[in-house]
Amino acid sequence: MKKIVTFGEIMLRLAPKGYLRFMQEPEFQATFGGGEANVAVSLANYGLNAAFVTKLPDNPIGRAAVKELRRHCVDVSCIKKGGNRVGIYYLEKGASQRPSKVVYDRAHSAIAEAEREDFDWNEIFRDTEWFHFTGITPALSSNTAAICLDAVKAAKERNITVSCDLNFRKNLWTSERAGEVMGQLMKYVDVCIANEEDAEKVFGIAAASSDIAGGRLNHDGYRDVAKQLADRFGCKYVAITLRTSISASDNRWAAMLYNGESAMFSREYPVHIVDRVGGGDSFGGGLIYGLYTGMSDREALEFAVAASCLKHTVEGDFNLVSVEEVLALAAGDGSGRVQR
Amino acid sequence: MKKIVTFGEIMLRLAPKGYLRFMQEPEFQATFGGGEANVAVSLANYGLNAAFVTKLPDNPIGRAAVKELRRHCVDVSCIKKGGNRVGIYYLEKGASQRPSKVVYDRAHSAIAEAEREDFDWNEIFRDTEWFHFTGITPALSSNTAAICLDAVKAAKERNITVSCDLNFRKNLWTSERAGEVMGQLMKYVDVCIANEEDAEKVFGIAAASSDIAGGRLNHDGYRDVAKQLADRFGCKYVAITLRTSISASDNRWAAMLYNGESAMFSREYPVHIVDRVGGGDSFGGGLIYGLYTGMSDREALEFAVAASCLKHTVEGDFNLVSVEEVLALAAGDGSGRVQR
Amino acid sequence: MKKIVTFGEIMLRLAPKGYLRFMQEPEFQATFGGGEANVAVSLANYGLNAAFVTKLPDNPIGRAAVKELRRHCVDVSCIKKGGNRVGIYYLEKGASQRPSKVVYDRAHSAIAEAEREDFDWNEIFRDTEWFHFTGITPALSSNTAAICLDAVKAAKERNITVSCDLNFRKNLWTSERAGEVMGQLMKYVDVCIANEEDAEKVFGIAAASSDIAGGRLNHDGYRDVAKQLADRFGCKYVAITLRTSISASDNRWAAMLYNGESAMFSREYPVHIVDRVGGGDSFGGGLIYGLYTGMSDREALEFAVAASCLKHTVEGDFNLVSVEEVLALAAGDGSGRVQR
Amino acid sequence: MKKIVTFGEIMLRLAPKGYLRFMQEPEFQATFGGGEANVAVSLANYGLNAAFVTKLPDNPIGRAAVKELRRHCVDVSCIKKGGNRVGIYYLEKGASQRPSKVVYDRAHSAIAEAEREDFDWNEIFRDTEWFHFTGITPALSSNTAAICLDAVKAAKERNITVSCDLNFRKNLWTSERAGEVMGQLMKYVDVCIANEEDAEKVFGIAAASSDIAGGRLNHDGYRDVAKQLADRFGCKYVAITLRTSISASDNRWAAMLYNGESAMFSREYPVHIVDRVGGGDSFGGGLIYGLYTGMSDREALEFAVAASCLKHTVEGDFNLVSVEEVLALAAGDGSGRVQR
Amino acid sequence: MKKIVTFGEIMLRLAPKGYLRFMQEPEFQATFGGGEANVAVSLANYGLNAAFVTKLPDNPIGRAAVKELRRHCVDVSCIKKGGNRVGIYYLEKGASQRPSKVVYDRAHSAIAEAEREDFDWNEIFRDTEWFHFTGITPALSSNTAAICLDAVKAAKERNITVSCDLNFRKNLWTSERAGEVMGQLMKYVDVCIANEEDAEKVFGIAAASSDIAGGRLNHDGYRDVAKQLADRFGCKYVAITLRTSISASDNRWAAMLYNGESAMFSREYPVHIVDRVGGGDSFGGGLIYGLYTGMSDREALEFAVAASCLKHTVEGDFNLVSVEEVLALAAGDGSGRVQR
Amino acid sequence: MKKIVTFGEIMLRLAPKGYLRFMQEPEFQATFGGGEANVAVSLANYGLNAAFVTKLPDNPIGRAAVKELRRHCVDVSCIKKGGNRVGIYYLEKGASQRPSKVVYDRAHSAIAEAEREDFDWNEIFRDTEWFHFTGITPALSSNTAAICLDAVKAAKERNITVSCDLNFRKNLWTSERAGEVMGQLMKYVDVCIANEEDAEKVFGIAAASSDIAGGRLNHDGYRDVAKQLADRFGCKYVAITLRTSISASDNRWAAMLYNGESAMFSREYPVHIVDRVGGGDSFGGGLIYGLYTGMSDREALEFAVAASCLKHTVEGDFNLVSVEEVLALAAGDGSGRVQR
Repeated sequence: MKKIVTFGEIMLRLAPKGYLRFMQEPEFQATFGGGEANVAVSLANYGLNAAFVTKLPDNPIGRAAVKELRRHCVDVSCIKKGGNRVGIYYLEKGASQRPSKVVYDRAHSAIAEAEREDFDWNEIFRDTEWFHFTGITPALSSNTAAICLDAVKAAKERNITVSCDLNFRKNLWTSERAGEVMGQLMKYVDVCIANEEDAEKVFGIAAASSDIAGGRLNHDGYRDVAKQLADRFGCKYVAITLRTSISASDNRWAAMLYNGESAMFSREYPVHIVDRVGGGDSFGGGLIYGLYTGMSDREALEFAVAASCLKHTVEGDFNLVSVEEVLALAAGDGSGRVQR
Repeated sequence: MKKIVTFGEIMLRLAPKGYLRFMQEPEFQATFGGGEANVAVSLANYGLNAAFVTKLPDNPIGRAAVKELRRHCVDVSCIKKGGNRVGIYYLEKGASQRPSKVVYDRAHSAIAEAEREDFDWNEIFRDTEWFHFTGITPALSSNTAAICLDAVKAAKERNITVSCDLNFRKNLWTSERAGEVMGQLMKYVDVCIANEEDAEKVFGIAAASSDIAGGRLNHDGYRDVAKQLADRFGCKYVAITLRTSISASDNRWAAMLYNGESAMFSREYPVHIVDRVGGGDSFGGGLIYGLYTGMSDREALEFAVAASCLKHTVEGDFNLVSVEEVLALAAGDGSGRVQR
Repeated sequence: MKKIVTFGEIMLRLAPKGYLRFMQEPEFQATFGGGEANVAVSLANYGLNAAFVTKLPDNPIGRAAVKELRRHCVDVSCIKKGGNRVGIYYLEKGASQRPSKVVYDRAHSAIAEAEREDFDWNEIFRDTEWFHFTGITPALSSNTAAICLDAVKAAKERNITVSCDLNFRKNLWTSERAGEVMGQLMKYVDVCIANEEDAEKVFGIAAASSDIAGGRLNHDGYRDVAKQLADRFGCKYVAITLRTSISASDNRWAAMLYNGESAMFSREYPVHIVDRVGGGDSFGGGLIYGLYTGMSDREALEFAVAASCLKHTVEGDFNLVSVEEVLALAAGDGSGRVQR
Repeated sequence: MKKIVTFGEIMLRLAPKGYLRFMQEPEFQATFGGGEANVAVSLANYGLNAAFVTKLPDNPIGRAAVKELRRHCVDVSCIKKGGNRVGIYYLEKGASQRPSKVVYDRAHSAIAEAEREDFDWNEIFRDTEWFHFTGITPALSSNTAAICLDAVKAAKERNITVSCDLNFRKNLWTSERAGEVMGQLMKYVDVCIANEEDAEKVFGIAAASSDIAGGRLNHDGYRDVAKQLADRFGCKYVAITLRTSISASDNRWAAMLYNGESAMFSREYPVHIVDRVGGGDSFGGGLIYGLYTGMSDREALEFAVAASCLKHTVEGDFNLVSVEEVLALAAGDGSGRVQR
Repeated sequence: MKKIVTFGEIMLRLAPKGYLRFMQEPEFQATFGGGEANVAVSLANYGLNAAFVTKLPDNPIGRAAVKELRRHCVDVSCIKKGGNRVGIYYLEKGASQRPSKVVYDRAHSAIAEAEREDFDWNEIFRDTEWFHFTGITPALSSNTAAICLDAVKAAKERNITVSCDLNFRKNLWTSERAGEVMGQLMKYVDVCIANEEDAEKVFGIAAASSDIAGGRLNHDGYRDVAKQLADRFGCKYVAITLRTSISASDNRWAAMLYNGESAMFSREYPVHIVDRVGGGDSFGGGLIYGLYTGMSDREALEFAVAASCLKHTVEGDFNLVSVEEVLALAAGDGSGRVQR
Repeated sequence: MKKIVTFGEIMLRLAPKGYLRFMQEPEFQATFGGGEANVAVSLANYGLNAAFVTKLPDNPIGRAAVKELRRHCVDVSCIKKGGNRVGIYYLEKGASQRPSKVVYDRAHSAIAEAEREDFDWNEIFRDTEWFHFTGITPALSSNTAAICLDAVKAAKERNITVSCDLNFRKNLWTSERAGEVMGQLMKYVDVCIANEEDAEKVFGIAAASSDIAGGRLNHDGYRDVAKQLADRFGCKYVAITLRTSISASDNRWAAMLYNGESAMFSREYPVHIVDRVGGGDSFGGGLIYGLYTGMSDREALEFAVAASCLKHTVEGDFNLVSVEEVLALAAGDGSGRVQR
């Protein structure tokens, strides 16, 4: 089986139990997560051959991250050992009108300080069919931006499909810098995943008259954004996730897929949230799975949305669900009746 | 006070904390439960003299099951010691579109391998007024099927009221075998509890045009099923629980009681679920309590539905609520205001 | 910065984890709380100089209560050491149709048995601008009633603004006794906080045709109650909180502020509840903050309601939120989107 | 089987996890315990018919105490319902040179405020062969002292054997008051359990030249104390437990039994402590079991010491061990090899 | 790198927290373990290429076992999917004079009911240099005994070194049956691991005058047992572990290695126990590592003893230590000073 | 009351529960600690006016650190807000022969990147009598080294007593750099605390013929080291802690105090360890308390050793004990008998 490679950062995620505020009790749930690692785990859960590429220090925390990925069947053989620290993010789970909060402590992580020489893409891309990264990775440092460029170029040379989730992070870089760096990388991207905000923040591509906070969706607007992205960068697919935040406890979740010709909108799910972090990544994982395994565009879209709907019910960054579970939901069974 | 006897299996229930998936963390909440034991606990909580009959190994796990029943005031004096293992079921709690999952590891349990000689129904039924079992018990093995037949025959000889919850379990037996065995047992049953699915799966009794998964209820259909059951087996009462699964987090819950003449439908509760396992059993416990203590049919039905509505808010299989709490809800106070 | 003084009882709060019933597992979450302490913590969280006055035994539990208050920046220098025990309340969290339950074990606490000589209000009120108490404190014992009278008189002599949350507790005293004692104290009160029930139970002040349990709010009725309270006792402000209990899991929450001239009604929030105890106190804390810092009446009201809306999402009695968080919600962002 | 009745207080025990200090984390392990309840549980664990008599409020905490006793097979039918509160003790587990700490909050408990009329000893002592109490019960209040006197007199009239563990508690009464009250009660006692300190504090009976804190045991001294007790009060047996406290983590544990003629000293166990509270009570339970079931004096003594040695390895007040486990240790197997 | 293959059962291990007795609290720590799996994990931790062979059901519990092994870098590619259940063992941790207790619920597990056809040893043994099993595997069923024979024969044909830990389990088979089956298998064994009890129980090979329970070791006796085993079955090495059980909390731990010519005795460690289950397996893992990597006999022995000494300080069955940690202890640093 | 100021870093401490290895379970106990903060907490616990000076980011983790210090009564008014991150250390608790492990992730913390301008020592030292720092602070960065120099100079100008714990950390700087920087700072130090290793690693001051790892103490050697330190830097007092590491579970603990004239050696305590991190800091806290409050040299030494003996029994970095508890132990009561 050919490989799917994702590249980015995996962080230690420290979260209070339940709905406690930070340090309300002296305890953290400690798991691992990060945009591209989350996608790799999704794909491995679906039975694909997924490899995650990053750099991690050779200390107990770094080794635990590798162990956790391996447990979920992710190929960790291309993870570079070295550097000083594992990046951290602190997560406080919100409820009702209180939003979830993320505090990052990721500067100076091994991957942020990695060198271009740390990664031999010739070696990494052996037997590879798909490469995925997100807009977070090039935002970590100018080095990682350069490494991403190395990677997408190497991928293109080998006819590897490249997907990218824009994932703009305002505390990592400015819109200007993001636009510049991502503009270069996007030329190599076949499948682009975004939300409306991303497109606007990174490339200034906005649709008229939509109102995110208010929760109203504007189909024409989203189609327009996707078309602009596809046209500007030559992407084959542009997918846009459509989240309506009713509250921190309840969201509505859907997505749109534009294939260069038409835009199709998925079924929308009302989601009662267990853990919403990694929701976007699970959409990416589902979409890649669908497209990679030859589903129709419509099927791939519905698979991706159903997968990420389920992610909102799973604790942690990783979307621990199987193909069967996603298909059952996509086929319409969202009644949640006990399975015996 | 006369006894109410229930007969069946009590299992060790192993469930991850909160909404974690199986083995996502190395810990299980370990409690006990099982259809007929759950009914016995309900009745004991209501202050009745409830005895549970089963077979359990004389090891620390078997003894812990007995202790837990005794703690809740259940008469454990007729539990047979012996056999090799306590049956187990693993439970993963669902949320939103992700269904709860049950994995059974109950084969070869002490009760499944029990012999007819293990139970002296003459002795067990001393001072007994009511006997309850479910369709799970005869499904465990041909021995337990024979024991159930011994029991209901002995009950009839003593004019003991017999109630049965059909509770079809497709992983324990086929519809054919179930129909055959249950067909024999039902002749002795005065009060039958079922859901539409049970009646169809076990006896092929279906009503036209209802749509369970879609959540639409068809009053005429349910009345029709109940009437067919009552007519075929001579039951005095047939109760059908009506669950509308909106999601794994939210259900609507109601029931119907048919008394041979007319069918009455209860108030319907929108339930935000804490733990839905044992919901049906708590309905059975409530109905038996109502009928046993001489409530009117309507009162008994509303008591049973309110009781099982509350069960959905209680962790574990057992419905740890009092008569006062059930009556308060049945009387209309579902506002959930703090009681000081 | 001038001080805000609150006076009352802080109790040890013992609550099972999650939605467990009392002693379902052998463990209690152990925190501290009490009406006036909760207000002090709210104010300290908002950056004000808040002092809490009470009496606590000099044992590890009493000292832990002091430590917890100090942790949240409350001035504990006027807490009197002595007495025999810390009052306790046991809390069981409800869900859906099952109400939360509070069992009090607060008799004979240090503050309930305090003497008038224990508190030197001249000393306590140095540099003080505001004094807050609730109807719980004078209900603890005739001593505490006398101490409250000492306090409000001393406050008036110094032109200190006095606020009072009526907070009627039927298990501490009768309506008759409450009316008598509170009637005396209310003469000194500038800002009165109540709910319709309080006003009726304590002073027999009721509005026609409202239906609390049913959840319908009657604007005219509330305005009428407030006006009666203001007129009878000469209060400058009367605030009434408006809770619609849909279930133990979901409430609607709003409030009204009457300023002697007109009554304004706040935005109403649909709340998915994490912990509802202390909800009223957090309203009081928010209102005092608003009025104390010179917000307009409308702003103060909306700040108070938003603050207490957020409290329902925070575990424990204390409302651990910042001014920024409250303002963000009051400004309209209740979408709960992740803050990175 | 005849009954063994014990009479006293059962308290809620609140202890931080592991070796945490009070309120270092916001959590308490919540179990139940108390001298005489502990003895009843020991006896029930050994298969005897043990009844515990006390008064407990009819609230969730009181009912939970009853449930916990019933779980361990204790006869709870003579527990009087009523009163206001369940007594509490806070326990902080020591280690190495840091001693364990107990903070009592037991004043005003239901049993402390019980009336003589609450207990009908004619009824309670039906089919009873043995009655046990400790010096804690009469220390709770003058009422409980009077009730104890009622009980021992009623016991003597029925030829019921009476045992008493002196258990002096300096924070409940003075030596003078203890000597006076216990002096009256001891006239009815057949089996007296004490440690050297008790005898001295209550009756001024001391042996020369022993040094408890230093850990040196003086056989002659202990024999002398026992003889004085037996002679003064006409006890048939006097047992003295011999604890050598090396540290809070390690003790040496043994005992002496004086039967009116000679004193025998048991094997001494070096104990690595898991939970030392209830150690003395478990000795009492073991001794009563031995004497009641007709063991020789030597066997009964060794059974009692082995039982209480095991108690030090069990969490909580209750000694959750079986006769088989105690006999195995008394027979010499203290190697702790895994039992498969 | 060549493979080391181990074959046997991996069970779900359910253990109460800390020193609690079974079901004293409603919770189990849930991990996985089993003699041969433990050895595989040890070897993988040391960086070797270790494969574990077994049969596991394709359900969430079986899949979780596979995931856990993979996490620790064990090659799981030869695990057969199928069968009905994962075997379970319940473990209660002892302390001081209270022994640890193991309750097995392993009958009817997938591996116990496996067929010879389930395992293709030609395939499994590709690139394999060492095969390890224990006396537990052939004791599970006559099928597993036959499979073991298939395996050792296939191993011999390929010149694969075979090691076996006798590990007699009296609740799985009788000494007679064990002697018969193991007698056949031992002919193919190069490295035999045992304790004196094993040799006597399985083969009737005993040394005079040693006293295990008393804790005295008899060097000549152990040498004699080893020589008899080596002579009878032609083993190249016989290792005997030497445990002196002072209590369930403290053991002394050493071992002897006989290489056909002479017997050498290792350093002895006084161990303060955290978790003693898997201690013997960790010795096996250490010994295989030492011999496989070409250490001298003395070095291999000291490595194995140091490794298993460390195992006693690690929670769970698996010995989660590195080669560096073992070497540091073997080199003499057992002072336990903090490593920064 | 005059102030005692300590200056340094407070870190988030992340430790697995109990004796688990890093990430063996997905959970960390999260507390705060650091050499100088630990000393400040000790002093505040003893009732002194202790201020801690550091720099912490204005984010939820930084604010939680401040809250925790305030809870323990430490004056936090001179903590500078700013910087990017709170330093972290991961701690794995060892047992028996397995050493505890510390993994630091403290680079780039707010205090490590602080500027000299961040601290106005004129302001900080108002009403100050004592200043304490450790060798860790100047090792963090050249900036903190410069700030330390500013501090000690400012202290000397005000006749503030200066104490320093050498605390060499090999992963923060080399011996050469340490010797150079500490050499400058030590000129201002009145009270020096060290262990033999520190003196040797930092200043090359060693005594002949002692053997730390082996655990033998050499009184003359320690006296000699202290005298050399005192002579070279003009310290009034040199204290050396004497730890004999028997294992990670058991240590022996004592200390020596040299006052320029003679060296006195304290009582030695055999310690069964609960948490050994912060042991040295608690000695420092005890010594400062003793000297500051005017104890005799001998009393101060014994107070310090008893205090740090108790620290080994307290979870977390902070020594949560009172003066009374320390005095009781210093007076000779280490028997660990329950205090009621």
